[in-house]
Amino acid sequence: MNSIDKLTEIFSRFPGIGPRQAKRFVYYLLQRHNGTTDDLIRALDDLKLETSQCSRCYRFFPKNHAGSNICSICTDKTRDESLLMIVPRDTDLDAVEKSRSFKGLYFVLGGVLPVLEREPEKRIRINELRERVKRDEGVLKEIILAMNANTEGENTSDFLKGELKVFQEASFSEFTISILGRGLSTGAELEYADPDTLKNALLHRTK
Amino acid sequence: MNSIDKLTEIFSRFPGIGPRQAKRFVYYLLQRHNGTTDDLIRALDDLKLETSQCSRCYRFFPKNHAGSNICSICTDKTRDESLLMIVPRDTDLDAVEKSRSFKGLYFVLGGVLPVLEREPEKRIRINELRERVKRDEGVLKEIILAMNANTEGENTSDFLKGELKVFQEASFSEFTISILGRGLSTGAELEYADPDTLKNALLHRTK
Amino acid sequence: MNSIDKLTEIFSRFPGIGPRQAKRFVYYLLQRHNGTTDDLIRALDDLKLETSQCSRCYRFFPKNHAGSNICSICTDKTRDESLLMIVPRDTDLDAVEKSRSFKGLYFVLGGVLPVLEREPEKRIRINELRERVKRDEGVLKEIILAMNANTEGENTSDFLKGELKVFQEASFSEFTISILGRGLSTGAELEYADPDTLKNALLHRTK
Amino acid sequence: MNSIDKLTEIFSRFPGIGPRQAKRFVYYLLQRHNGTTDDLIRALDDLKLETSQCSRCYRFFPKNHAGSNICSICTDKTRDESLLMIVPRDTDLDAVEKSRSFKGLYFVLGGVLPVLEREPEKRIRINELRERVKRDEGVLKEIILAMNANTEGENTSDFLKGELKVFQEASFSEFTISILGRGLSTGAELEYADPDTLKNALLHRTK
Repeated sequence: MNSIDKLTEIFSRFPGIGPRQAKRFVYYLLQRHNGTTDDLIRALDDLKLETSQCSRCYRFFPKNHAGSNICSICTDKTRDESLLMIVPRDTDLDAVEKSRSFKGLYFVLGGVLPVLEREPEKRIRINELRERVKRDEGVLKEIILAMNANTEGENTSDFLKGELKVFQEASFSEFTISILGRGLSTGAELEYADPDTLKNALLHRTK
Repeated sequence: MNSIDKLTEIFSRFPGIGPRQAKRFVYYLLQRHNGTTDDLIRALDDLKLETSQCSRCYRFFPKNHAGSNICSICTDKTRDESLLMIVPRDTDLDAVEKSRSFKGLYFVLGGVLPVLEREPEKRIRINELRERVKRDEGVLKEIILAMNANTEGENTSDFLKGELKVFQEASFSEFTISILGRGLSTGAELEYADPDTLKNALLHRTK
Repeated sequence: MNSIDKLTEIFSRFPGIGPRQAKRFVYYLLQRHNGTTDDLIRALDDLKLETSQCSRCYRFFPKNHAGSNICSICTDKTRDESLLMIVPRDTDLDAVEKSRSFKGLYFVLGGVLPVLEREPEKRIRINELRERVKRDEGVLKEIILAMNANTEGENTSDFLKGELKVFQEASFSEFTISILGRGLSTGAELEYADPDTLKNALLHRTK
Repeated sequence: MNSIDKLTEIFSRFPGIGPRQAKRFVYYLLQRHNGTTDDLIRALDDLKLETSQCSRCYRFFPKNHAGSNICSICTDKTRDESLLMIVPRDTDLDAVEKSRSFKGLYFVLGGVLPVLEREPEKRIRINELRERVKRDEGVLKEIILAMNANTEGENTSDFLKGELKVFQEASFSEFTISILGRGLSTGAELEYADPDTLKNALLHRTK
């Protein structure tokens, strides 16, 4: 395979990219006469050197000078360590951070569980989550399951509730489990809302 | 204008229909050799004869035998008359009814207010709403503003709050005003949710 | 079924309309307090009274004073009766007329043939077409099969070619059969064009 | 800027990619623990080393052993050098090659001209094209302007016709100029075709 086809093949495995757009990426780089290609190689090298995965929340983060393997959120003393939000992926964590509405800590699950998944531990960091909860025993007061409002998200929430209940019952730790509130998302219209969304919007109406 | 063009013109003013689809409607009728056209004329005649607008909630409803001008919801003694939900249109009322999550009464506003609308009374039934609230004085405990979660919906909510506050202050009646809860609609994904939706989803998290 | 539901049901069988939009049509009419409903009933009555189906080309047309059952195109002496264009539906005929690029006569087939259709005569006016071609014997010099450039269109073209060849061989009439030219439609981009379209665009390049 | 943000920024300048998808690319790479990142760096290095731009047609091509700066199409003796097709970009050339319907040579223009562009030579390789045509004098019999069937494509065709006419008049060379044929693209429907497409489909009808 020549280098144009090889690079096209790698780009076509990127999320949401087909072979045609992958080819356009390659021509985009070629038309820029190596300038952008060099920038890209440098940025990829830097990504490898300067990024770590946090050993506590498992998110990826830019390494700091101390070379700590714990990220800036997990080491931030102003955050409330009694609150733990479990999110599927780094992008979900980014979205919640950007909303500036949460001041607790996170755990990045690494994925979601399709219905009838037989090997959950291969899809999500369930063993790592167990260790995290054990470690935080006594401190933890609430675990928030922040999943997408779709079938896979609900399936993952149900699975996690089952796993976490074992802890609630076995240990002396007393944490509650909560899920994100349902209602009208920004832009939602009554006419097209499903019954469940309407029911929740009514239940959580605010004065 | 010939009858094909005339009918096309009427259909093209239907909500969401352009001239091309309007023309397809006409050919659809012609190809059915008057059978469907006759059914349609009969159904339209019946609509005129058998449908009333409720003088209390302003929704359209099929006339009953007694010939009452009050609809079956407004005369239903099992419904909670201390709760009044204000909806923009009949289709919104239908959606809430279908969700079986509300057991109070309704008021159909007849539309929404665009931002900076100078003549609100031409767009929505604000005078009729005032009369309704006056009539229900003493009975009413809560008014739910059930608007779409978009700019026009919020503008309409703000306007109605202002109008209704006059009542709250002037009269002896004590009702609260609420709006529908915000959060994740069914299908919503964290990654694409706006900060406001995330904030509300977190605020209204359920144990 | 009440009259609102009945009318909703009729509208939901219109081409491209689902139950939700059908219901919006009904409320649209109700909100206009019978004015639009009356106009619609009148236009539908007129459609029945004032529209005929041409006994020669089978298109629907506004009746003229003479009460002829032949349409204005078929009786237009300035048109070239040696050219016959076969189109699937009235809307296709309208599109060709609007382009002002054809000066021959038409035959409206009434539909297209899905692949493997067992009873073509129930889908398209094949018997009527045979009679038309027999009638025009001696006059006809070319039949243009003007079908959509998709699988059903090509299947219909293939079927019609087979049927028409019988005429070409059996009779003394000498007409040719042609199909619409392929190439780049307005707006088409080379990068997204399929090989067949590119091949034809190249074949029919113009100086 | 940290390395995650820097790489996100580079990806977000790729054609058709916004900041959100760019970020997903970065996390996609991070989640693969450097394996894919290493492959990507290697493929980018290879792209720089092993790809040339043809000095005759200006397309990008994988270098061959001889290290020639002329591509495999331009050196292919079986191709018809009397036919020159001018295409906007490499992706267009790829599409035509894939259709296996053209056996002449190419010239990649490097872009198209927006209407009222004041500096055409900064957008497209007009000087290089002039040299190419001069070089092929005597050999060239036809130049095919293979542009997209949209406003910019037509504008570019018009500009190129003007430029090339100078050559036709000034020199002894006798080449014709042609543009790609218009008609129905695969999938096109009569009802939605514009008048121009219908006119051309009729003009280029095939027996």
